Amino acid sequence: MDVKLSVTPYKGTRDFYPRDMKLRNWFFGKVRSALENACFEEYEGPMLESLELYAAKSGEELAKEQTYNFTDRGGRDLAIRPEMTPTVARMVAGKMGELNYPLKWFSIANMYRYERPQRGRLREFWQLNVDIFGCDTFEADLDVLQSAISVLRAYGADETMFRVHINNRRFFNDAIAAIAGTDAEGSKRISKVVDRKNKITREAYEAAMKELGLDAAQIEKIDSLYTMSVQEATALCPDSQGAQELTALFDALSKAGLAKYCMFDFGIIRGLDYYTGTVFEVFDLAPENNRAMFGGGRYDNLVGLFVKNAKISGVGYGMGDVTLENFLVTHNLIPDLDNEGTKVLITRFDDVPYEAYTKLVSSLQEAGVRSALYLGQKKFGKQIDYAVKGNYSHVVIMGGNELAGGIVKVKNLATREETEVATDQLAAFFA
Amino acid sequence: MDVKLSVTPYKGTRDFYPRDMKLRNWFFGKVRSALENACFEEYEGPMLESLELYAAKSGEELAKEQTYNFTDRGGRDLAIRPEMTPTVARMVAGKMGELNYPLKWFSIANMYRYERPQRGRLREFWQLNVDIFGCDTFEADLDVLQSAISVLRAYGADETMFRVHINNRRFFNDAIAAIAGTDAEGSKRISKVVDRKNKITREAYEAAMKELGLDAAQIEKIDSLYTMSVQEATALCPDSQGAQELTALFDALSKAGLAKYCMFDFGIIRGLDYYTGTVFEVFDLAPENNRAMFGGGRYDNLVGLFVKNAKISGVGYGMGDVTLENFLVTHNLIPDLDNEGTKVLITRFDDVPYEAYTKLVSSLQEAGVRSALYLGQKKFGKQIDYAVKGNYSHVVIMGGNELAGGIVKVKNLATREETEVATDQLAAFFA
Repeated sequence: MDVKLSVTPYKGTRDFYPRDMKLRNWFFGKVRSALENACFEEYEGPMLESLELYAAKSGEELAKEQTYNFTDRGGRDLAIRPEMTPTVARMVAGKMGELNYPLKWFSIANMYRYERPQRGRLREFWQLNVDIFGCDTFEADLDVLQSAISVLRAYGADETMFRVHINNRRFFNDAIAAIAGTDAEGSKRISKVVDRKNKITREAYEAAMKELGLDAAQIEKIDSLYTMSVQEATALCPDSQGAQELTALFDALSKAGLAKYCMFDFGIIRGLDYYTGTVFEVFDLAPENNRAMFGGGRYDNLVGLFVKNAKISGVGYGMGDVTLENFLVTHNLIPDLDNEGTKVLITRFDDVPYEAYTKLVSSLQEAGVRSALYLGQKKFGKQIDYAVKGNYSHVVIMGGNELAGGIVKVKNLATREETEVATDQLAAFFA
Repeated sequence: MDVKLSVTPYKGTRDFYPRDMKLRNWFFGKVRSALENACFEEYEGPMLESLELYAAKSGEELAKEQTYNFTDRGGRDLAIRPEMTPTVARMVAGKMGELNYPLKWFSIANMYRYERPQRGRLREFWQLNVDIFGCDTFEADLDVLQSAISVLRAYGADETMFRVHINNRRFFNDAIAAIAGTDAEGSKRISKVVDRKNKITREAYEAAMKELGLDAAQIEKIDSLYTMSVQEATALCPDSQGAQELTALFDALSKAGLAKYCMFDFGIIRGLDYYTGTVFEVFDLAPENNRAMFGGGRYDNLVGLFVKNAKISGVGYGMGDVTLENFLVTHNLIPDLDNEGTKVLITRFDDVPYEAYTKLVSSLQEAGVRSALYLGQKKFGKQIDYAVKGNYSHVVIMGGNELAGGIVKVKNLATREETEVATDQLAAFFA
């Protein structure tokens, strides 16, 4: 074969052949029904946004480096969305006065990030975003966490497979202040080191902490926090608003029967500065894949970039399809997608007028029986091969003799059983 | 309000708030189930493709003019896909030897075209693409036409609302040759004028035809073809392969009971050169919107750009969401999307511990009853307003007295009827 144009998709993107698409539809279908069952509503926005939306959040340089961006013929700087939050913030700001708060919103959308493709990270990915806007208190945090747990449970995952690690930014700052006497800026600098803790060596961690003015005793005190329960940790600064938020949230999680899925983890920071309260990451518990799959948290000023003096708080998370698929594969949670249930191929013989077949397939389709005619005029054996390869469950055989007798033969491809059915009873046979 | 960043989406793109998204999900849900019922399989590809994919088809200049395109940091020219065909051609070429022909494939995907937004045309749109690959004969044409009719019928559209206008490129060329003695190139030039017929004046049409060497009598003969039945038209050159294809297709359409949805129309060309046989356009019959909504046809060489000396034929169509929505609105075919069926809001009172509510909502959600807690602590009246505005069908009322009595009150928001239900029977009440 002399290949001319390349058949390979662009680096870091994927082709979804029907088999891949079945998987994608299956797992987003599960998400959709779990979230709709809890009255979350779906939204979506455009793939292209003004670059300034991302520049305003992360600085123009970073925004340009991490996105696919270009200038349109009207001189407008555009980016392909690398994440959903700026879009949803713009949308909420755009109809701020009309919306019905608290909003429980989700979207499932494709994004592009300009980065080197690696395990779990591609340039084009699909992401679930779930958020509650306009409720400041623990009820929204609880509802969002519950939705994440419900989504994973909808796939058949249980508490042996994943764990939600929870912290609180306000509590983090207050605990660090209590230990090291830092101000807000100092706590923030320390949070950056804690955030990198699992990516650097112990030596590098200690060196970075010391550089920020912490002594060995203080580093040790912080160390002890990493293994504390929420009760032990919050006892360090019980008057902290963050401690009270943590206590209320863990109390509610426990009473809602969700404690087994959750644990306190002082090491959870979530890099981005805009998180203000609860932060969490969901870990895969499989030894071979033990890492954070996705996470989220609470942020106080969603619409601040768009509307002056307006505050709408949010709490939510984003989950990528690649990470989710790794988790489902690791825990063997993907069902047999080749089993598509009843799917009927009507085979074709030369001695039968074509309209007898079109009539038959129409009667099945009208009755909601998933079915098709074999298109073309290959030998019977080839038609059977086509049915098997195409995951058809049954073939219908109607040659001249059957047509004359008003019957068809139905062959079950799994059991190889053959049944004679009156032609006008065929739809009922499959119903 | 002092607006900082703009809240308006980029020109020619749309925000899908939950109400808009419900509509989009409704109408693509209909498409999906109609097509899956006929054993079409869904696929998808990346939003970004090599620019050369489009340049190879329409020339680099046109490809650059009509797409959003840019160069990545590796020097690769990319475009945001303006259509699906080059992607699906690449995908078929990429697994040419492994696929199970005939393929019955569809996709529902967003595309970008760089053009001035106008009625029915936006810069970002969603498009349904339906194709059958690897069957050369009329059976595939029939199956594709039937799928288009099934999709429209799934919305409740009938033969008073739309009509499929069908022609055949081979027949067109042979008929023009019979009338005007043209060769293939001459027929093609005439086809371009016929294609523009409804967009230019009669004078301009005649002038363009005369410029191509046709005399008044020949123009008149062509005119007569525009109103002919398929029998009359094909009688002009009965030995033409195209005439035979048309006859076979119309015969099969008629025997499959689809004649009432279809008509022969010699004026249907479909601009693109790659169509080779059957071509069709689906017209809205509403007087105020009488125009082609979408169309398609047969093309012989899908994979030619990718694989030398390989031919896989295809027949299919693409349907945009904006046009479809106009059609559905015009014919009043969009159901009441505010009626979401059973959707239960559990209201909240101060004298009840929160865990009583989380327990209750969990029991409903586990039973598959779409339900949510009111998040936050507003007055009862505000909670009812929230339920009404959020299309909830029922609210559940459980104050201290109800909790003590083991009951809840259920209020139907449509009928205003109130019912007392034992708390442990609540899920069953809604089931």
